[in-house]
Amino acid sequence: MIYFDNSATTKPFKEVLDSFMKVSSEFFGNPSSLHGIGATAEKLLSQARMQIAGLLEVEAEEICFTSGGTESNNLALKGAAAAYRTRGNHLITTAVEHASVRESFNQLEKHGYKVTFLPVDTQGRVSPADIRDAMTDETILVSVMHVNNETGTIQPIEEIGQMLRAFPKVLFHVDGVQGAGKIPLNLKEAEVDMYSFSAHKFHGLKGSGGLYIKKGIRLEPLLSGGSQENLRRGGTENPAGAVAMAKALRISLEQRTERLDTMNEIRAKLMDGLDEMKGVAINTPLAGAAPHIINFSVPGIKAETFVHSLEEMGIYVSTTSACSSKKKTASRTLLAMGVDDELASSAVRISLSFENTLEEAKNVLLAIEKTVAKLGKVLK
Amino acid sequence: MIYFDNSATTKPFKEVLDSFMKVSSEFFGNPSSLHGIGATAEKLLSQARMQIAGLLEVEAEEICFTSGGTESNNLALKGAAAAYRTRGNHLITTAVEHASVRESFNQLEKHGYKVTFLPVDTQGRVSPADIRDAMTDETILVSVMHVNNETGTIQPIEEIGQMLRAFPKVLFHVDGVQGAGKIPLNLKEAEVDMYSFSAHKFHGLKGSGGLYIKKGIRLEPLLSGGSQENLRRGGTENPAGAVAMAKALRISLEQRTERLDTMNEIRAKLMDGLDEMKGVAINTPLAGAAPHIINFSVPGIKAETFVHSLEEMGIYVSTTSACSSKKKTASRTLLAMGVDDELASSAVRISLSFENTLEEAKNVLLAIEKTVAKLGKVLK
Repeated sequence: MIYFDNSATTKPFKEVLDSFMKVSSEFFGNPSSLHGIGATAEKLLSQARMQIAGLLEVEAEEICFTSGGTESNNLALKGAAAAYRTRGNHLITTAVEHASVRESFNQLEKHGYKVTFLPVDTQGRVSPADIRDAMTDETILVSVMHVNNETGTIQPIEEIGQMLRAFPKVLFHVDGVQGAGKIPLNLKEAEVDMYSFSAHKFHGLKGSGGLYIKKGIRLEPLLSGGSQENLRRGGTENPAGAVAMAKALRISLEQRTERLDTMNEIRAKLMDGLDEMKGVAINTPLAGAAPHIINFSVPGIKAETFVHSLEEMGIYVSTTSACSSKKKTASRTLLAMGVDDELASSAVRISLSFENTLEEAKNVLLAIEKTVAKLGKVLK
Repeated sequence: MIYFDNSATTKPFKEVLDSFMKVSSEFFGNPSSLHGIGATAEKLLSQARMQIAGLLEVEAEEICFTSGGTESNNLALKGAAAAYRTRGNHLITTAVEHASVRESFNQLEKHGYKVTFLPVDTQGRVSPADIRDAMTDETILVSVMHVNNETGTIQPIEEIGQMLRAFPKVLFHVDGVQGAGKIPLNLKEAEVDMYSFSAHKFHGLKGSGGLYIKKGIRLEPLLSGGSQENLRRGGTENPAGAVAMAKALRISLEQRTERLDTMNEIRAKLMDGLDEMKGVAINTPLAGAAPHIINFSVPGIKAETFVHSLEEMGIYVSTTSACSSKKKTASRTLLAMGVDDELASSAVRISLSFENTLEEAKNVLLAIEKTVAKLGKVLK
């Protein structure tokens, strides 16, 4: 089996599962309880918070634990929109965001906010100048993803952050779900106010995520209740999930140090191989993209058919994002990049982890070649 | 160690942890992925959904997985308030709800809804007639908890459900977090439209919960995003958490069948013992209360002091709910029951699981007696 669908989800590290088990079985207390069993759970939670803050180079109190990337994005966008409503009602984002960002904005529109969805260039990149030009007196928030989940395109976060210095009252949210653990981003230098991440994208567990919230920023909670997470998110905390996430992030960053070169080699091998293949178009930009995502189209062959055909050879890839894969519509991201409908409907995504090998990439290339030939013939 | 704080959280069953581990390590796919690894994860998720639906005697499609009780309550209340806003803007609840319900309503008030917080009697019970009398043409929702988390008082859910038959356009939400797995409630017969539950209250894992949503009811999602959970909750599903929750609920209900008599004996022992103790007042009603929660006060002794004193003898109990325990204010629930401020500030909660024994109860009674004598002396 070759698992090349790591942007959908990753296999949890063994160490992550071991930590989760240990905390769940031995330190099962409610961190909000006054007694020692609660205090031990609270201590573990607090250590996990510090560890994650350290890895992201922010303060512990700036980390808010959530149930995952979708909750982090929803909390950031709806929470800030509600908290800063008196300041204005205009929000800016891009046409290529993840469904959890796009749908949050659509919901906010229904509730009276004005949202500008900025176009992107043919590489899927938004222009900082376009963001600046879209600003009005009513603008309260800009949200741009770090790494596109379908194409791997990296957005100019640092540049946008610099540009936003001229607008100190406008918050800057970054959906970091596909970048965390893989593409470094100095949140403080990039002037990011909120940054979402999700554990299961870096070999942690589903159901755990987090939101960096810069000190001083108010959010109206999505989950009202107890005073957990500094009144930003009610509900019994999940120390086992938090400890597991901290471990997953730490190991991912260590792997990155050791294996980024290998991942870059694998990417180059795949990009070159696909480039040489007749009937295949690459959608991922050559430069300015993450090393772990490669998107290509085989015009004339439905993406779903292609995915299933590769699966018969034990290779797991995906169509668009997992969240949208069952919709069977052409990729919005690719359409926004100006890719035509036929190409956008036949797009296949390969997504790597630091555990994949060059050998696997070679086998996948051979399998893609075979599949293109086989399905191409059927269609003729 | 005697753990009598099971309403704060429970120790996960070993079988629950084993299931979680197995699914997380062997079936780690994203249920939304198109390939076989995703399909296997989706199948497990779907089986867990069917199992939970079966145990609650509802349909599988009526179960929406969430990150816990707080999210379930928030989704039910805010989701329904938004979805049915055109029908009216009046909501009815009680003065003794959990923080996640109370604060959700407080937030809705800030957003223009009118909320009636009904009083309760000295046993902590709301009157169905009071609910009926509070109805206006604008009323769209009634929310009443099943079992009070501080006193164990059972609310007349069936009676309220019957009464609400005369108001077919008013939704009925029940916070079942403290009742699920312990106090039977036929959701269909009681005409409940939404019912919240949380896995870690019945030996499942933190970070998993669910909301029963009767077929036909629309909710505006709290977490917008992908089309997961029938468009009611975006975000990558957590099959391991769902399977673990299903197992926890099944085992809890089996334990209930086998051990309810024992739990009732333990409760009787504790109630009798506390009743005979000088300087102790019982806040939990004798009848119409859950068997697993006993609330008492030792006037003159701060609840926190009492909890710590018992802890020195290896006994773990709590002040009010864990979610509110760090606030150090008198219990709102007890104040609403007409208990005076001194009693409400010295309230201690014992909460049992089906795994506790009569022997433990005897030891706890002795320890309480000692503590009352010791702390009583210090105060004189």
